Amino acid sequence: MSEDALSAFMKAAREYYGNTSSVHDVGTNAKALVEHSRQTLAATLNVDPAGLYFSSGGTEGNWLGIEALLSAGSGNHIIISAAEHSSVRRIVEKKEKEGWRISRIPLTTSGVVDVEALQDEMTEDTALVSVQLVNSDLGTIQPLEVIHRLCAESGVFLHSDFVQAFGKIDVTNVVGLVDSFSLSAHKIGGPKGVGAVYIRPSLSFTPIFPSVTHESGVRPGTLNTPGIASFVVAADHHVEEERISYLKSIFLTKLESSFQLVGDTRDQEVPILGLLVEGVPGQWLMLEGSRRGYAFSVGSACQSYQDSTLPTLDAMGIDEELAETFIRISFHPSHTEADVLGLADCLNGIVAEYSTVSAAP
Amino acid sequence: MSEDALSAFMKAAREYYGNTSSVHDVGTNAKALVEHSRQTLAATLNVDPAGLYFSSGGTEGNWLGIEALLSAGSGNHIIISAAEHSSVRRIVEKKEKEGWRISRIPLTTSGVVDVEALQDEMTEDTALVSVQLVNSDLGTIQPLEVIHRLCAESGVFLHSDFVQAFGKIDVTNVVGLVDSFSLSAHKIGGPKGVGAVYIRPSLSFTPIFPSVTHESGVRPGTLNTPGIASFVVAADHHVEEERISYLKSIFLTKLESSFQLVGDTRDQEVPILGLLVEGVPGQWLMLEGSRRGYAFSVGSACQSYQDSTLPTLDAMGIDEELAETFIRISFHPSHTEADVLGLADCLNGIVAEYSTVSAAP
Repeated sequence: MSEDALSAFMKAAREYYGNTSSVHDVGTNAKALVEHSRQTLAATLNVDPAGLYFSSGGTEGNWLGIEALLSAGSGNHIIISAAEHSSVRRIVEKKEKEGWRISRIPLTTSGVVDVEALQDEMTEDTALVSVQLVNSDLGTIQPLEVIHRLCAESGVFLHSDFVQAFGKIDVTNVVGLVDSFSLSAHKIGGPKGVGAVYIRPSLSFTPIFPSVTHESGVRPGTLNTPGIASFVVAADHHVEEERISYLKSIFLTKLESSFQLVGDTRDQEVPILGLLVEGVPGQWLMLEGSRRGYAFSVGSACQSYQDSTLPTLDAMGIDEELAETFIRISFHPSHTEADVLGLADCLNGIVAEYSTVSAAP
Repeated sequence: MSEDALSAFMKAAREYYGNTSSVHDVGTNAKALVEHSRQTLAATLNVDPAGLYFSSGGTEGNWLGIEALLSAGSGNHIIISAAEHSSVRRIVEKKEKEGWRISRIPLTTSGVVDVEALQDEMTEDTALVSVQLVNSDLGTIQPLEVIHRLCAESGVFLHSDFVQAFGKIDVTNVVGLVDSFSLSAHKIGGPKGVGAVYIRPSLSFTPIFPSVTHESGVRPGTLNTPGIASFVVAADHHVEEERISYLKSIFLTKLESSFQLVGDTRDQEVPILGLLVEGVPGQWLMLEGSRRGYAFSVGSACQSYQDSTLPTLDAMGIDEELAETFIRISFHPSHTEADVLGLADCLNGIVAEYSTVSAAP
């Protein structure tokens, strides 16, 4: 969490502690701060503030957006990419149990959703397509413009999980392509437990709970004023950095050829990349890295304990044995050249060491 | 938000920033902090930590608890008090739309649920009773022990909204009476956007979303580590205060006889009380009070914009005209004698002034 965001949180917690639904002054001050935050975030995103609702995070944002679009549309069929974030996969699993038909589209070897396969699955019964803007394991940018055209032609609604994209790439040109999208504060230096969902205000939809008073009826519960103010300060200060492309580039150059970059992410500014290194378990790399002071993972955190093979790699048709060598690295603008070159050295060293260890009698 | 809770939030945001589901050290440290917080809160509540799940607040806690009990039980009928917090009323409205039958039980003139009427509504088809521990408008303590006995006799599950009770009265003797209960952090000096739900661990229930990894599958979404740590610090430091009974007593003594206390709350430690003053609109009192620096309300905040008559007063059979004179006052241990006597003077003054204003030609 950035110090700016933390300061905003403390200031709001101390000075704007009212309930935004209270009519007395303490309450209306808090309400004014929330509405100011909504305007600011909407301007950053280039969307109508009337469609922007604050949530408890990306998971809830995905749920509110998907349910809103399903209630606004018709049909009984949902299409998602097989590499969606676990929150989207769980939501559609719930819908599947409720009787909806679900299609899960694989990724190509470039790490993006197979658009032809997606088009083939579309029928008159398709109500919704949900495809993330940036894949959380690989950092690949998904082809939302093409998917938008397919959806628009067929009158199908399009939701997108923007959690890994917002603050990392410019989303202002993409917001017009989708009917709803979700954001998370803690991915951009804001607080955990806060996020937002945008639902195109011209849509006529039914909120999940009836008669709710908060957030125009879309999201129940007392508004988290300090969290919201802090989120928007983080969003305002978090600009996409060219620096990331540079850090990634020197990191990949230093890395030995035993590492294979997964998906076409070399020349873009998303601060995530995925690597495979044949024969060396990702868990081993991760634990050895952790011992040497580097925190990276074997997949985005929300699914670490859940899936035997990472759904993203499964969606690309990568076999289980190779998939077990996967690691995911996340860069931050505060990292130095020395940091990322050190990490590359560390990874090269662990791989060299592993061949010795595994060759030992 | 208390300074202790704010310090805990900042410390956790700066030092325990990992995702609790990540396996590297930064993640496991955050997980350890969350698990320590769970143990501490469970000890304060005198419950099994295995049944305690962190949520985004009281509303979500009520939802998770109610849905868990409905999935564990049988029957198609739900009984609530007509004076439940709006979050519970919205959840059962949703269930009503899904085909469940709902009974809403009135309050007696003492401001507690009419237990005989509740018993009369129970049938073999009753799956769940949901009654708050403390009413959020009046501060009345509800007769959970009797309701527990009725439920136990009939094998019906009992959920209770503890949001207004926790930190205000001793709940450790009540936790054993219910199958699930909800808590909210910001009611006890913790952060907004954080809460918890307890679901009796011996229950076999189906979580709302399938295959969730966080919080033993019960609540999806990245855990709000700083919010949780801060919540538990607030809970630990927040002890029920005898002081409240004293402040209420001197306040009520000073108040002129035109004010009528609603419900039997004179001699207990709940820091909320409700007042009616015939002929003087509550809105007028609230706005004049706000102008003089006092923040009180015309009902608990979450329903201010929604209901024409406050459901709690409606549940007591108080007519609309009298109900419009209602105000709700909330005391805090940090208030001084001078504060509460000043408020009584202020209210007496506003009422006297109103008779002059309303008598003017």
